[in-house]
Amino acid sequence: MAHNQSTHQRKMSLSSIVSSGLGSMIDGRPLIHMTPPQGWINDPNGLYYNQLEQKYHMYYQYNPNDTVWDTPLYWGHATSDNLLTWDHHGVAISPDEDDHGIFSGSIVVDKNNTSGYFDDSIDPENRIVALYTLFGDNEKQTQEVAFSNDGGYTFEKYNKNPVIDVNSTQFRDPKVIWHEETQKWVMLLVKSQEYKVQTYVSDNLLDWEFGSNFTKEGYLGFQYECPGLFKTKIENPKEGCVDEKWVLVMAINPGSPIGGSINEYFVGDFDGVTFTPDDHATRFVDTGKDFYAFQAFDNTEDGRIIGVAWASNWQYAQRVPDDLGYRGSMSLVREYTLRYDYTNPETEQLLLVQRPVLDDQYLDVADELAVEAITNFDIKILSSIGDESIKIGFDGKVGEFYINRHTSHVFQRENNFFTERWSNYVEPLTRDTDNNKVYQVYGIVDKNILEVYFNNGAFTSTNTFFFERGIPANIEVTTDVDNSFVEINKLSIRKPWTCIMI
Amino acid sequence: MAHNQSTHQRKMSLSSIVSSGLGSMIDGRPLIHMTPPQGWINDPNGLYYNQLEQKYHMYYQYNPNDTVWDTPLYWGHATSDNLLTWDHHGVAISPDEDDHGIFSGSIVVDKNNTSGYFDDSIDPENRIVALYTLFGDNEKQTQEVAFSNDGGYTFEKYNKNPVIDVNSTQFRDPKVIWHEETQKWVMLLVKSQEYKVQTYVSDNLLDWEFGSNFTKEGYLGFQYECPGLFKTKIENPKEGCVDEKWVLVMAINPGSPIGGSINEYFVGDFDGVTFTPDDHATRFVDTGKDFYAFQAFDNTEDGRIIGVAWASNWQYAQRVPDDLGYRGSMSLVREYTLRYDYTNPETEQLLLVQRPVLDDQYLDVADELAVEAITNFDIKILSSIGDESIKIGFDGKVGEFYINRHTSHVFQRENNFFTERWSNYVEPLTRDTDNNKVYQVYGIVDKNILEVYFNNGAFTSTNTFFFERGIPANIEVTTDVDNSFVEINKLSIRKPWTCIMI
Repeated sequence: MAHNQSTHQRKMSLSSIVSSGLGSMIDGRPLIHMTPPQGWINDPNGLYYNQLEQKYHMYYQYNPNDTVWDTPLYWGHATSDNLLTWDHHGVAISPDEDDHGIFSGSIVVDKNNTSGYFDDSIDPENRIVALYTLFGDNEKQTQEVAFSNDGGYTFEKYNKNPVIDVNSTQFRDPKVIWHEETQKWVMLLVKSQEYKVQTYVSDNLLDWEFGSNFTKEGYLGFQYECPGLFKTKIENPKEGCVDEKWVLVMAINPGSPIGGSINEYFVGDFDGVTFTPDDHATRFVDTGKDFYAFQAFDNTEDGRIIGVAWASNWQYAQRVPDDLGYRGSMSLVREYTLRYDYTNPETEQLLLVQRPVLDDQYLDVADELAVEAITNFDIKILSSIGDESIKIGFDGKVGEFYINRHTSHVFQRENNFFTERWSNYVEPLTRDTDNNKVYQVYGIVDKNILEVYFNNGAFTSTNTFFFERGIPANIEVTTDVDNSFVEINKLSIRKPWTCIMI
Repeated sequence: MAHNQSTHQRKMSLSSIVSSGLGSMIDGRPLIHMTPPQGWINDPNGLYYNQLEQKYHMYYQYNPNDTVWDTPLYWGHATSDNLLTWDHHGVAISPDEDDHGIFSGSIVVDKNNTSGYFDDSIDPENRIVALYTLFGDNEKQTQEVAFSNDGGYTFEKYNKNPVIDVNSTQFRDPKVIWHEETQKWVMLLVKSQEYKVQTYVSDNLLDWEFGSNFTKEGYLGFQYECPGLFKTKIENPKEGCVDEKWVLVMAINPGSPIGGSINEYFVGDFDGVTFTPDDHATRFVDTGKDFYAFQAFDNTEDGRIIGVAWASNWQYAQRVPDDLGYRGSMSLVREYTLRYDYTNPETEQLLLVQRPVLDDQYLDVADELAVEAITNFDIKILSSIGDESIKIGFDGKVGEFYINRHTSHVFQRENNFFTERWSNYVEPLTRDTDNNKVYQVYGIVDKNILEVYFNNGAFTSTNTFFFERGIPANIEVTTDVDNSFVEINKLSIRKPWTCIMI
């Protein structure tokens, strides 16, 4: 994969413009965001790292037969060495009936053979157990198990499925983790329309005992989906306090405050059965319109927390252009930590911090990028053809960042739910010696996905867009107010497939 | 005030259109939404009903000298018999210094002269006490008291002000209520950047004792403002349970999930000192972009809870067109109750329900309006000149309502924060005998404000808009999908100043 590099380092003031060519790109399919070979995808599933094979595995909700959601619904499968580019392996788990679906779930590596399924001949790192929801007869949702002896390429379903059945049509999305302190498996599930994230506990991945309910917390929307739970490090722990905390995530759809699908999270403690949040505030993982069904990887090599979300929104996911024979893509894989950051001059909060996992040889500039912005600036991403552009910008007087993904594409123009312009507050990362507010912004544009990271990842916004013609090809940074300046420590733009802005 | 009525009662299917003229209107100033004679307004303040005079009093944050926020900042004053049209009385309370502001606050009627300020000659219903925040030297915010002997037209400041001073620049917006059960005055305040709603308690409105903190609940944004607390009836109480509950409201700005300013609320119990929410979910009072700083009226004649919000958003309030010499308007005054409503097929929630207070002679059709919608429909509000329109609509497949307030106005086109298109989930109000989803929608268009009420007020969306030319003059209702129908039980459109849509 050839790539070129052009780097600009300059200070701009008064109407100055930096315009940099991204060069021509091959087609409209994202290059470092996972997309399926064909058909429809939604939630990421079964994310795990195989330490024997040294590969990341990603499964996903998959309908290979059409570009809309439908049964039979499968787990598709892809693997990656670098979390940027993916090899496709087709269908991994199939339903037994055409009107059934293998719904979302997770994978764990059963190294100690707690399930009793694996022969000693199977390397501990290849003892793969998938736990998913069967969408079965009469739309009933039960939790099932499947085993893989070959590192996750083929699966055999457990012969005593289901492992949990509460006779519900709204009970799904098992995310299983190993809880070191209690030496138990813990499964997160949702009773989706009761607004409950539930825990179940097990010694063997097969027999599960109900643990606790976490209910009516956060923004409720229509229902909860896709729960998750992980422990991650605090980047700047307070002296004498813990340096790790648990994070509970869940997805709501429909009913995001901005419409459709969104992820939210809580920071707190977990004793192996019950999650206790530090506070009852609502916080969104990503404030964009295209970030849903987040899941973290199991069994990462160094215990770091990395995860990925579906980069779409149920409001319009089945209506976006499908000229290339597929619909749906994942976000970049991101690393998740916690950090105390100020959200106003008087209050620090422990926020979930996200950084894209980028191969150093391509993209190692994140930490070097910074904007000092005491006034207005606009960053435009222009199409290679025509006069289309999308933009993000900051307004010092309002104190918020805006996203404007308006294009001329007929889909965007005619779809009533493809919100094009909205905004979010971002507290300055710090202040300089003259008390000017210092923000940090960087972003990645990959064909039709824009991911923006503010303040070293304390706030993110992930959004798809569809140019009527062409692909992203130029970036323009403008500031147009007197007595103001935007300092760009580094503007790095990479060809052919991605760029980083300021 | 002349008005005409045209009523349509019909069932529509397949591309049928109802188009009804709203007739010509005099100018662009709203007719039943409070606007100032000139200058700038923001939060409503000091709302109360004078039972002697039989008038509603509304005060508001007021800069009569310009159409932007600035000091000196005053309390402006208006009164009304019908809560629709207002008589203006200019400035009611002024700061002593040009760089000071009489910030937001409330009024109570001190009938029993607990303050000791009033002579016996003053009718109990005319013993008016205003409590507000002084924005004073070095931007310090302290709580002050002013008395009125004449029913709220003129005020004398308390000679021992301030009554609460904690040496903070972020401590404001006193909302005082009489707590019957403990026979005490209770003041709600915010330590805005600590995300705290605080209570203080008093016997005499002058000496205040700290009560409790309600903190880090809801969506936090940048800061809390404008707290409120009231007890209101449950329309459909459960057998054997309480039929009233307390509602705590607060405003956040900036930092709404959709950008800028928004109000949120909690339902629970209050013992005179501490508010205990029933759950920790985040719920917004109104999902539009123009509904902020809600406050309820004190001393209403029958104890009903009515209140009003500023119909703007700090993101763009100081930039909207001011051709008519003013900026800012209030929402309609609304009545607030609670109701158990389903938010999905499995869960009922106790929701805050809002209905506009409308004079029966003009607008009494709310209960008769209904839409049965199992598919898509669009409601367009067209300008009297040109081809501009704004619209709301429903998409059965997505299951959400959208708002699209896009116009050709240069302000809207060029302001990055004037979000034009977004959406919200609304659960069907009920289902008919064929299991079709039944929604109910009605709305009020008043020159440049659209208020939409879903499901008898369980969800609302309040938004301003600015046509490039003309004023709202026609409504068009369209449905265009096969095998679908929209039943409009009554479409009532009133001239010259308002209309109600299905």
